[in-house]
Amino acid sequence: MDLEKYMAEKAKRAREASYALLGAATAEKDKALSFIAEEIEKNRDIIKKENAKDLETAKKKKRKDAFIDRLTLTDKRIDTMIKNCADIKGLKDPVGEVTREWTRPNGLKITKKRMPLGVVGIIFEARPNVCVEASALTLKSGNAVILRGGSDAVNSNICLGNIIRDGIKKAGLPESAVEVIEETDRETILHLVKAKEFVDVIIPRGGVELIRFIEENSVIPVIRHDAGICHVYADKEADIHMAVNIAFNSKVQRPGVCNAAETLLVHKDIAGEFMPEMAEKFAGAGVEMRVDKDIKEIIKNAKGNIRAVNEDDFKKEHLALVISVKKVNSLEEAVAHINKYGSHHTDSIVTENPETAEKFLTLVDSADCFHNCSTRFSDGYEYGLGAEMGISNQKLHVRGPMALEGLTSEKFVVYGAGQIRE
Amino acid sequence: MDLEKYMAEKAKRAREASYALLGAATAEKDKALSFIAEEIEKNRDIIKKENAKDLETAKKKKRKDAFIDRLTLTDKRIDTMIKNCADIKGLKDPVGEVTREWTRPNGLKITKKRMPLGVVGIIFEARPNVCVEASALTLKSGNAVILRGGSDAVNSNICLGNIIRDGIKKAGLPESAVEVIEETDRETILHLVKAKEFVDVIIPRGGVELIRFIEENSVIPVIRHDAGICHVYADKEADIHMAVNIAFNSKVQRPGVCNAAETLLVHKDIAGEFMPEMAEKFAGAGVEMRVDKDIKEIIKNAKGNIRAVNEDDFKKEHLALVISVKKVNSLEEAVAHINKYGSHHTDSIVTENPETAEKFLTLVDSADCFHNCSTRFSDGYEYGLGAEMGISNQKLHVRGPMALEGLTSEKFVVYGAGQIRE
Repeated sequence: MDLEKYMAEKAKRAREASYALLGAATAEKDKALSFIAEEIEKNRDIIKKENAKDLETAKKKKRKDAFIDRLTLTDKRIDTMIKNCADIKGLKDPVGEVTREWTRPNGLKITKKRMPLGVVGIIFEARPNVCVEASALTLKSGNAVILRGGSDAVNSNICLGNIIRDGIKKAGLPESAVEVIEETDRETILHLVKAKEFVDVIIPRGGVELIRFIEENSVIPVIRHDAGICHVYADKEADIHMAVNIAFNSKVQRPGVCNAAETLLVHKDIAGEFMPEMAEKFAGAGVEMRVDKDIKEIIKNAKGNIRAVNEDDFKKEHLALVISVKKVNSLEEAVAHINKYGSHHTDSIVTENPETAEKFLTLVDSADCFHNCSTRFSDGYEYGLGAEMGISNQKLHVRGPMALEGLTSEKFVVYGAGQIRE
Repeated sequence: MDLEKYMAEKAKRAREASYALLGAATAEKDKALSFIAEEIEKNRDIIKKENAKDLETAKKKKRKDAFIDRLTLTDKRIDTMIKNCADIKGLKDPVGEVTREWTRPNGLKITKKRMPLGVVGIIFEARPNVCVEASALTLKSGNAVILRGGSDAVNSNICLGNIIRDGIKKAGLPESAVEVIEETDRETILHLVKAKEFVDVIIPRGGVELIRFIEENSVIPVIRHDAGICHVYADKEADIHMAVNIAFNSKVQRPGVCNAAETLLVHKDIAGEFMPEMAEKFAGAGVEMRVDKDIKEIIKNAKGNIRAVNEDDFKKEHLALVISVKKVNSLEEAVAHINKYGSHHTDSIVTENPETAEKFLTLVDSADCFHNCSTRFSDGYEYGLGAEMGISNQKLHVRGPMALEGLTSEKFVVYGAGQIRE
């Protein structure tokens, strides 16, 4: 099979569909979302049957339990897919919004208008539910999408893709608004990220290695959902009890996700009062603390798993019940540490001083900068944006949770009355 | 010389300066712009002396007149540089603007706040005035900049870079806000576009070949100022005289720039009345018309340079007094032609029917979509944005003229009162 030709044809069809979607009304797109939900409901058995094939292969390959879990489509997960379609249907259509408008001395009326990006290429691993979420979000925002999932979920993805395409077709929109790549050779990724003529943005969702491969090879803009090395900084003017609660929640509430905290920075002036309470709480939850010498000295009598921290720890996304703890002498030192070792994702300051807070919120170069709340709030749902495509920690186009608006950009639309340039 | 190390050091210094700039007040940045203007004024003779070295080499290399012209820094051009600094000083500082704000049921206040991108890498050819324009724009928007100019302007660039850095230092801001690459081996471009840790965006300004090279190699987001294949579409309900004027102005007023029109699309219903007047006007200005068979038939008795058009013409940026002319049977055909052959830059419809116009403005997938005015208005100054970094015809982050706002993006700043996630 000529994979280059295969990919070019898929991408070309998606491009054509994206042009048709430019003219699609909100009601048409919403109708398609309803039909997709209906089709998923109707085809539960087929979905589970196709998914079972993938699960069988995965078990033969001796995939880990967590992997198998992500791959599995239970009735409950199918319910969630259906709910996703309904939720996204309920969100405001971002397309066509006039974000700015002014008139020039020569009478030209300049407007900036929100329009779909065009064709979105999503490269993801073994989570077949991404098919539905990504299709629903791109459709609502007037984009076509190319779904290039991993080989482990190929049967599930093809099945869901067909169901989604049927729903779109029933609503009178072009089924190529969703194109599923059935061929999972890695070469297809290479062709996708080079198809500049047909694809406007690449969104990788997967491990660090996949993201690096795509960044190295893509000639199309990439929106990266990258590692989360998030910090909590307990300032000298922090409410001690609040700081303990926020640091604890940021680390423990769900340690395996990107917006969990990895490092706790403590101002020297409060360390003596703060650390014993903090250490006791962490120890109670089985959190391993990797601390510097000064902190060690303060909690030398504390229980729990306490070890020495090293520089490598500060660069690590533990994704586990492990936290690095460091004493800092000033706000500036905290900020410098975060900008140097963090991943520009989410960082929170706990302080009662609003001026100190504002300084932190300005100087920390992260997508999500928080005052007096847990890093775990860094999330499209928690922000009230509805569903999200991921959390961007690059700095162009969109920072933080990427929701419907992030799937659009603004073009200039100019209204004249015959003006020519002198 | 170890160019990789050399570039990494430059980039690292720029990154550090960018963090310092996050905390710079508008008044400090404006003061730096005044000092830069003063330093340029004071150092006119040195600038011209250094520029003369570059001109001498260029003449020895037998560079073309247009090239030499772009390279030359006359007193008038130096005046313009000084004026640029003053103009940009007068523009509104985009940093810190709160673009959205809402409160969640749990009391969290979510805001989106405009912040600098960080470090901007500009790769440009033999136009030393870019040093001043780019430095002033990035400084005002709180960014650090790395200037990697072509070897032909190296003495001029180093000289201007030193002057700019002196001005910044006088204002108490870090001089590394502007880093000039003195080494012009092509290898330095490669290191720059791979320095992901230190550089946030690459802006190439130059020929198609340079842009392709950068797109192929960059792992950093690129904002492309690409070819302009712009269209004028004379609709069946166009005011004939207005359509003739707009098409003429779009082609003739300055044919060598990216927002000049390259193709004229004419609706069949008006071609008979429109084309003879149009052809006469084009012939009078020495414009070569490349026309399809139907148009040829209509203007068979017209004077002027009239040839047959072929498909390649539709893909070409002539940058000269040449225009392709094609008859279309419908608005849809015009839109399809533009989306297929255009460069998603600027396209204008002439029509008296506002519904037809709205359809065109929605369906044409270009950064700048115009109704009843010349394509030549596609320009930061004409839009009232002040100076610009270029015109983007990619679709992420910024479309069309990229001004101060395009040098920022929005981060989430969230204010809590101790909220943790349940």
